[in-house]
Amino acid sequence: MLHSFRALALGAGLLTAGLHAQPFDDATLNHSDRLRDHALQSDIAWQVVESLTTEVGPRLAGTEGDARAVAWAKARFEAMGFDAVRLEPVTVPHWERGYADAQVTLPFPQPLVISALGNSVPTPEGGIEARIVRFDTLADLEAADPAQVKGKLAFIDHKMERFKDGRGYGPVVKARGRGAVAAAQKGAVGLLLRSVSTSSHRFAHTGVMRYVDGVAKIPAAAISPPDADQLTRMLARQDDIQVKLELASMDKGQTTSYNVIGEIRGRSQPEEIVVIGAHLDSWDEGTGALDDGAGVGIVTAAAQHILDLEQRPARTVRVVLYAAEEIGLIGAKAYRDHHQADLDNHYIAAEADFGAGPIYRLDSRVNEAARPAIEAMVAQMAPLGVTLGHNHSWGGPDVSVLPPLGVPVAGLNMDGTDYFDYHHTPDDTLDKIDPEAIRQSAAVYTLFAWLMANADSTLRPIPPTTN
Amino acid sequence: MLHSFRALALGAGLLTAGLHAQPFDDATLNHSDRLRDHALQSDIAWQVVESLTTEVGPRLAGTEGDARAVAWAKARFEAMGFDAVRLEPVTVPHWERGYADAQVTLPFPQPLVISALGNSVPTPEGGIEARIVRFDTLADLEAADPAQVKGKLAFIDHKMERFKDGRGYGPVVKARGRGAVAAAQKGAVGLLLRSVSTSSHRFAHTGVMRYVDGVAKIPAAAISPPDADQLTRMLARQDDIQVKLELASMDKGQTTSYNVIGEIRGRSQPEEIVVIGAHLDSWDEGTGALDDGAGVGIVTAAAQHILDLEQRPARTVRVVLYAAEEIGLIGAKAYRDHHQADLDNHYIAAEADFGAGPIYRLDSRVNEAARPAIEAMVAQMAPLGVTLGHNHSWGGPDVSVLPPLGVPVAGLNMDGTDYFDYHHTPDDTLDKIDPEAIRQSAAVYTLFAWLMANADSTLRPIPPTTN
Repeated sequence: MLHSFRALALGAGLLTAGLHAQPFDDATLNHSDRLRDHALQSDIAWQVVESLTTEVGPRLAGTEGDARAVAWAKARFEAMGFDAVRLEPVTVPHWERGYADAQVTLPFPQPLVISALGNSVPTPEGGIEARIVRFDTLADLEAADPAQVKGKLAFIDHKMERFKDGRGYGPVVKARGRGAVAAAQKGAVGLLLRSVSTSSHRFAHTGVMRYVDGVAKIPAAAISPPDADQLTRMLARQDDIQVKLELASMDKGQTTSYNVIGEIRGRSQPEEIVVIGAHLDSWDEGTGALDDGAGVGIVTAAAQHILDLEQRPARTVRVVLYAAEEIGLIGAKAYRDHHQADLDNHYIAAEADFGAGPIYRLDSRVNEAARPAIEAMVAQMAPLGVTLGHNHSWGGPDVSVLPPLGVPVAGLNMDGTDYFDYHHTPDDTLDKIDPEAIRQSAAVYTLFAWLMANADSTLRPIPPTTN
Repeated sequence: MLHSFRALALGAGLLTAGLHAQPFDDATLNHSDRLRDHALQSDIAWQVVESLTTEVGPRLAGTEGDARAVAWAKARFEAMGFDAVRLEPVTVPHWERGYADAQVTLPFPQPLVISALGNSVPTPEGGIEARIVRFDTLADLEAADPAQVKGKLAFIDHKMERFKDGRGYGPVVKARGRGAVAAAQKGAVGLLLRSVSTSSHRFAHTGVMRYVDGVAKIPAAAISPPDADQLTRMLARQDDIQVKLELASMDKGQTTSYNVIGEIRGRSQPEEIVVIGAHLDSWDEGTGALDDGAGVGIVTAAAQHILDLEQRPARTVRVVLYAAEEIGLIGAKAYRDHHQADLDNHYIAAEADFGAGPIYRLDSRVNEAARPAIEAMVAQMAPLGVTLGHNHSWGGPDVSVLPPLGVPVAGLNMDGTDYFDYHHTPDDTLDKIDPEAIRQSAAVYTLFAWLMANADSTLRPIPPTTN
């Protein structure tokens, strides 16, 4: 029991080519085992997301719900025993969707289930009514003859594929971000987007879209997958399908929100920081349970588990609840800018923003020479079902702003098979969270924070991206 | 091949106690085999529901969509080769939901997903705002101290259980029908009903409710299951949960809709009628695919299959698409009253109103002496997976008005495991129909219509109900 495995391994290393110094000492590993056991008994992650989604609910950046979320997080962090709790102000746009309605008017009158895309301008009062013109993809719209599009509602009907790692999202979400600009460039009067969704339930999936200077700002809405199929069936009967779209969305200018930060100060290298984060804001139609109440629960629980066992990590563990992720990583960029002088002290950063888990693989982006530390960390997570992944992680949405400035990152990959069934819909509610999955995820983040805050390994400089 | 199994069986019957005359002759059985094969190659049921849900969509009784559905059905029937197509006028109430909104205002402000219950009065303009008081069941509300309810929104949170045969519906749907009256009798200002649902998706399930004379008419809305859980979680924190409810529903008086009827005239007993029916109306938020576009597709396809093979049944096969089922079996009652003088000639009636299938069991309500005919019919359906059920069938909602007047009925039981996930929601759309399931169901109805229209058996008098 007192015999040191690390010392043994170090001794053996003298004889074994390629064996590195052990990145974790025995005390760290022993405490890691205790933390894992503790985390697997804990309901904290679920309790946190239950509290946030019930007591706050929707919390779109800039809204009253967002302000209540910040107050909720500050109070929660203050009650936890963190060494420091801070709010860092972030200037955020305040957009509200207001009234939204669409219907087929001719030749088969019926309502459509829609959701205004975030940032969309409103229609003129009373709405716009026009023929629709359908495209399989954004690229097809971009390649279209403007004469086919002019004066119409452009309808992009790109279906998303379901994958465990969510890789079906990227190819399709481009049309949400850029579709209105592409449509306006061809003379369209509005955009109807098949929801970026793997579900066939009748929810429209919102999400942010963008305009560019010099191109007309046209209103943009997502329609539910069954409604997209319905329009396509109508178009198979005749070309002239008329839709009326009315959006009363409001640009309410800019306001202040906050990144909420809680810290466990490191015992020996407090200036070095391990960041675990999630975003506090959510879309407005659901209660933001999977996106990203779950992440808030996971990283908050990870810190709580470490605090519970009253052993300090060597480095500082910093929990960051980012503001305004949904409308453009605004809190993450503010964090990056605010901490610019300090980013060299960021040992590694990770975030939880892909539902409740479970986590099946850990990717990294660290110096190749430091991969043994990652491997040794994953070995501690193996009883939880986590395997070692690649070394070109992007870190996740909010954390993705850090590697360009040299910060090492990790990606703790969650099973996202069903994530895009609920993403950005009214149906993103607490009941969609599996208590066992979020418990496992919180346990993994607990080990990540603890081990990275105690690793004896230099993670920098990080390699350039390879994909 | 020319040897008659029936003759053999009749001969054997002389020697065998309890063996009855065979209810079907060889020609009938041979043609039944051909019809089964034909039906299993047919996509007609799916095509019919595809056409109805796409070209008409929602068709609440009394609305413009309902009128279009009648026109659609008439045109479809006229194109099919029926011997007679008729519209029988039905006076129906015309209710429209209009605007509906609800939100928690205190202490955790957030929107709720609701649906006005059919027939509900509106709230005063600007809505009503009140504390909620929760009950597990209608019975608990009925037993409550009025002092606990007065001035509040009564919230009935009765959860529905999932069963293949849908038997979880009955105990819970009472609260939808009678909840507003019970609440008003205790002094409530409105009713919030946990949706009668087996799903946890965030859809509110509408459905008809009733008032009674002498009791205040208070507004009534269903809330989605996740919203019901949310309110319950809030109440676990504190008693004073305030909700604002606004309904702008409209009673537009009475108008005329139609039962749509198509007939294949019997070759030898045309005055005797086998009725297969479904209801043409639907709720207004979905496109009425499962409820009851599927039934329309199934019974229409059954008739089409018989017409396709150009062999006449002995009796008349009558397809009835009932008006205004959803708001109180209004078309069914009109049919009963209109055909009162003729009901003695109704050999048997069945309907399809429980989704798309597949059908797993056939129940009946016929004279016990006629059960061999039912058994022999089910034997023909055995290759389709249908088994013989009991003899106290209620027939289904629309058909249920006929046994009290002596008409034999059958219940062709569909697998309804998922039916109440979609029932009366915006999510009741075409994609929820399994093409293989509806093909099987249409094949079973084809055999039912053919065999009952050729059976050599007296089905009357029917037994009293035993349950």
